[in-house]
Amino acid sequence: MFELKSRDAAGRIGALTIRGRKIETPLLLPVINPSIQQIEPKEMQKMGFEGVITNSYIIKRDEELRELALEKGVHKLLDFDGLVMTDSGSYQLSEYGSVEVGPEEIVEFQKSIGSDIGVILDIPTPPDVGLEKAEKDVAETQKRAVNSVPLKGDMLLCGTVQGSTYPALRERAAKGIGGLDFDIHAIGGVVPLMSDYRFGELVDVVMSANRHLPGDKPVHLFGCGHPMLFALACAMGCDIFDSAAYALYAKDGRYITPRGTLRLKEIREFPCSCPVCSSTTPQEVREMGERGRADALQRHNLYVSIEEIKRVKQAIHEGSLFELVEARAKSHPYLLDGFKRFLKYDIEHLDPVTKSSAFFYTGPDSLKRAEVKRHLGRLGRIGQGETLVLLPDANKPYSKTYGVTSTKEHHICIASPVFGIIPLVVEDVYPLTQHERPSELDREQVELLKSCAEDYAKKFKKVMTHKDLEFLGIGELFGDLKGFSADRRKAENVELKLRAIADYQFGSGAGEALMRGATAKWARTDRIRSVYSGSELIATLRAHDGFLTLTPEGAMKLLELPSPANRVIVIDDAVEFVRDGKSVFAGFVADADPEMRPYQEVVVVDKSDEFLGTGRALLSGGEMKAFKKGVAVKIRHRAPGDTIK
Amino acid sequence: MFELKSRDAAGRIGALTIRGRKIETPLLLPVINPSIQQIEPKEMQKMGFEGVITNSYIIKRDEELRELALEKGVHKLLDFDGLVMTDSGSYQLSEYGSVEVGPEEIVEFQKSIGSDIGVILDIPTPPDVGLEKAEKDVAETQKRAVNSVPLKGDMLLCGTVQGSTYPALRERAAKGIGGLDFDIHAIGGVVPLMSDYRFGELVDVVMSANRHLPGDKPVHLFGCGHPMLFALACAMGCDIFDSAAYALYAKDGRYITPRGTLRLKEIREFPCSCPVCSSTTPQEVREMGERGRADALQRHNLYVSIEEIKRVKQAIHEGSLFELVEARAKSHPYLLDGFKRFLKYDIEHLDPVTKSSAFFYTGPDSLKRAEVKRHLGRLGRIGQGETLVLLPDANKPYSKTYGVTSTKEHHICIASPVFGIIPLVVEDVYPLTQHERPSELDREQVELLKSCAEDYAKKFKKVMTHKDLEFLGIGELFGDLKGFSADRRKAENVELKLRAIADYQFGSGAGEALMRGATAKWARTDRIRSVYSGSELIATLRAHDGFLTLTPEGAMKLLELPSPANRVIVIDDAVEFVRDGKSVFAGFVADADPEMRPYQEVVVVDKSDEFLGTGRALLSGGEMKAFKKGVAVKIRHRAPGDTIK
Repeated sequence: MFELKSRDAAGRIGALTIRGRKIETPLLLPVINPSIQQIEPKEMQKMGFEGVITNSYIIKRDEELRELALEKGVHKLLDFDGLVMTDSGSYQLSEYGSVEVGPEEIVEFQKSIGSDIGVILDIPTPPDVGLEKAEKDVAETQKRAVNSVPLKGDMLLCGTVQGSTYPALRERAAKGIGGLDFDIHAIGGVVPLMSDYRFGELVDVVMSANRHLPGDKPVHLFGCGHPMLFALACAMGCDIFDSAAYALYAKDGRYITPRGTLRLKEIREFPCSCPVCSSTTPQEVREMGERGRADALQRHNLYVSIEEIKRVKQAIHEGSLFELVEARAKSHPYLLDGFKRFLKYDIEHLDPVTKSSAFFYTGPDSLKRAEVKRHLGRLGRIGQGETLVLLPDANKPYSKTYGVTSTKEHHICIASPVFGIIPLVVEDVYPLTQHERPSELDREQVELLKSCAEDYAKKFKKVMTHKDLEFLGIGELFGDLKGFSADRRKAENVELKLRAIADYQFGSGAGEALMRGATAKWARTDRIRSVYSGSELIATLRAHDGFLTLTPEGAMKLLELPSPANRVIVIDDAVEFVRDGKSVFAGFVADADPEMRPYQEVVVVDKSDEFLGTGRALLSGGEMKAFKKGVAVKIRHRAPGDTIK
Repeated sequence: MFELKSRDAAGRIGALTIRGRKIETPLLLPVINPSIQQIEPKEMQKMGFEGVITNSYIIKRDEELRELALEKGVHKLLDFDGLVMTDSGSYQLSEYGSVEVGPEEIVEFQKSIGSDIGVILDIPTPPDVGLEKAEKDVAETQKRAVNSVPLKGDMLLCGTVQGSTYPALRERAAKGIGGLDFDIHAIGGVVPLMSDYRFGELVDVVMSANRHLPGDKPVHLFGCGHPMLFALACAMGCDIFDSAAYALYAKDGRYITPRGTLRLKEIREFPCSCPVCSSTTPQEVREMGERGRADALQRHNLYVSIEEIKRVKQAIHEGSLFELVEARAKSHPYLLDGFKRFLKYDIEHLDPVTKSSAFFYTGPDSLKRAEVKRHLGRLGRIGQGETLVLLPDANKPYSKTYGVTSTKEHHICIASPVFGIIPLVVEDVYPLTQHERPSELDREQVELLKSCAEDYAKKFKKVMTHKDLEFLGIGELFGDLKGFSADRRKAENVELKLRAIADYQFGSGAGEALMRGATAKWARTDRIRSVYSGSELIATLRAHDGFLTLTPEGAMKLLELPSPANRVIVIDDAVEFVRDGKSVFAGFVADADPEMRPYQEVVVVDKSDEFLGTGRALLSGGEMKAFKKGVAVKIRHRAPGDTIK
């Protein structure tokens, strides 16, 4: 079983359950050669590696290793009690053209030596082969996949997506593999793309597979072992990596960093503080014997690799993965190629609506982020009034800086060089307040400003533009703000704001359904804390991200919107669980709003649209339907009046 | 004495000699509170810190500490045999408005406790004060500086540049301090800018000081202790840093990374592999007692700080500092502000002409790099022929990819999206071959291409443009390259190429002086290896960067150009040393070509323009005249026929 714990961009922290033990992803597995072990797997475990990958084909072909593995198991063979994944000989197939084992035989063998995760004997197709050859290989791999799945027993089994450098074929292969009962999905045949720094094409290959895999299984990117790729690969939705690089590079006198590779002979100072680098100098390592040198480099390479995995996990946890990917992309122009290619894919539906870290604008590429795309889409849900008033970007909160409030007459907006237009009525909603930008504007920002202001202005009879925004070329210019100061606590202004937040968060019409005649209680911070309909509490406004959290009373009002808006509809079997306040599991979801995004507040109903609870979605609408396992919604409130024990 | 060892951008690796011991810069000194020591200075030394900084004012005011320091010295007081720098109480002055010690008294005290580097008691002026106040403080600081210098004895003394946020005042203060016999220059009063993330203004302050300090002393950026700033600060020419941050942040539960600061409570995974982070988990550290937690965080903060210093040094050594600065700038929009401000300053004269790493184009900001600016300037030195032929960017070497050669008729150039125009005749010169770019073009690249091609075309009667470059909008379009294949080893084509390289490297006219009738010997790689005038070897062409290295015979030909072009003119006292093949020291330089750049090949002459030797400049022309110590030129060849023993 695989469960998502935390997410950012298309990346995720997950928990994979293997023989009762939970292992967290993103997960990096060092490749262990069963016949030559330099660094013991046990030592790797102390460094933080929870698992390793070794080659069952090599074990099978060596009599001594085979007997030992069959008798005592692969864990004993490696003297390792962590996760052991085994590869099947596909690599040897790609290197030597044939292997002396059958596809079913090797799955059976992996199971019989007690491998935790086995891999099918797929046909690895290199980049740039003819389409016919690539199609033939995919068909054969699919046939083997179909025959292998029934053999897996209690071993987790990994099915590999091939398809060479043909995105359409990768897509078809992904659908084929994704339709079978595998526990892990893998993307194979990409090593040559990585070793030739063809990162743009790597992104095409990975994205065309990942977008068509169901997403409820971890994705293993085979052969991806260089830490400079981990952030990007994770942002694309890959979860498991294997590294032979740590040893191969070490043997060749190469020193890995998250920003590229250095040759030991060129290093003057170790740019690292791992236990190896903080206790020796490059000169000392150069003067070691061959074995000592390779050992030192291997250990460093392992440390720096697991360090980057931890860095990526921390970034997903914080919601700053995009910034990390961008910083890494600056390490090499070809990595930047990969990043730019990644920006062309739409992952907005996977990106959480709220994050714990602020949105950092760090250049024109930031305008292509999911958060900006989502905001520009949601702007269509709001914007009423006679006159649009445009003000320049300023310190936040904007309404406080300017001392102005939106009214029925004046819909006041900030011309934002990051989000285009920020209506004051939703200024507190993430990331409209929670963002930072450099003072100097890029051209792309000015262009966004112009096109966004022009579009938004179409909804209004009149436009008034602050004189500092003259360059926008729209509206009647003004300099004096006095005309826009209004009582922000006046009932109609409060309702206006609440309606806008509801529309922005839940979709057009939500304001009317939820906030008709709503009133607010204010916090000491002079921000709205809670929302009432008459004497009934219908929602609270979260201080950290400005989103509404619904009470059951509020949630029920929201059901005025036609189904499936904001709903997770559960099958009958799940109704009692939700009534008890238990989480909704993906397997029990009958339908869900396709517009639903991770971390959004949702309403859980039964098939007759009866209210069951309200809570926080952990999956997108699409995922809820595709996933068979894992938590889909964490319930906050169940039947009216009750809260979770 | 301070000597430059290696440089990149305006950054440098230097060796500072203190009481006979050489200490390398960039140097980070942890701040030690003499009364409360958590991590022992000795332990810091094992982590890689070669020195610490402590506060002489605190020592002086505490009877016990004072007696001990006076009796046994400050090194014994701290139980530390590395470098000990002492601060003077300026910080206390800025915090409390006054100190109970006189400016001369505290210099004497620092000397008497055996401090290696003392600091004058300057007047720290905060940002944003009135100009009058800032000027008064600078005047008082300068007075104190004048009075303090004669007292320094064998202690190195550090003079501080103040001037608040007034660049012109900083400039004036730098000239004042730079004119006195200090051993270290410091930039003070910047802590509030750093703690408020006002990095744009920080850059203005630092650059306005650094551009007017003589550059032959290390520059200490007082209070700069966060590793996210080290790369940028070094790129601006700062050399010494001090960190109280490691301890202050630790006390406050904050965990430093080179990309920013995290709160311990928010950390899920330590993104680091220092000995602390690779042996504990965030949860374990959170569960430690207050003291243990602060200790663990302090140690991590120290490791990650020295790690970044080592990373910066390695980047300077490789010539990849700019890329590191840019990657760091992506960590926070305000750091990006600092980076963008830095790009506005011209540092081309300090940036070496050749580097061991390739130039990476990583975005439009790369077009503002010294290498591009220099190339665009040097393009003015070359470009003869009837017809300019423009070809699209391609695999390198370009002439091999296209199978074409420049002739008298056809001056063939690559329309390069990184360097504008790359004439084939200089294609091998660094960084015209040694660069990489992403496949997708930024708009700024297209604009550069257009304006550069248009400018360059003015030198020719006719322009022929490959049809794939139609967007340039100039020239007669063609598709067939056949007309441009020519014998690249034909004498006149060889001479054309050699003349162009000489002009590009040494300035207009150098081709005529050096390469009139020159012939080439070719390496097996099909590249020119050595250059002859008749039977006389005049130069070799370096394979790694395409620059010419002159023989004495070649160097003497180059002296045809009017003085001081390409010359370092030494005073009479130095003549014999150079004849003996010894390095030219800065103090012995009478004059130098102001166009000279670090790592350039130069000719050393006496005052009557008599040839003495040829070699590699380590300083720019301006620095050669300003610096009083350190190697200015490393001699390769001295009197004709001889080479260095």
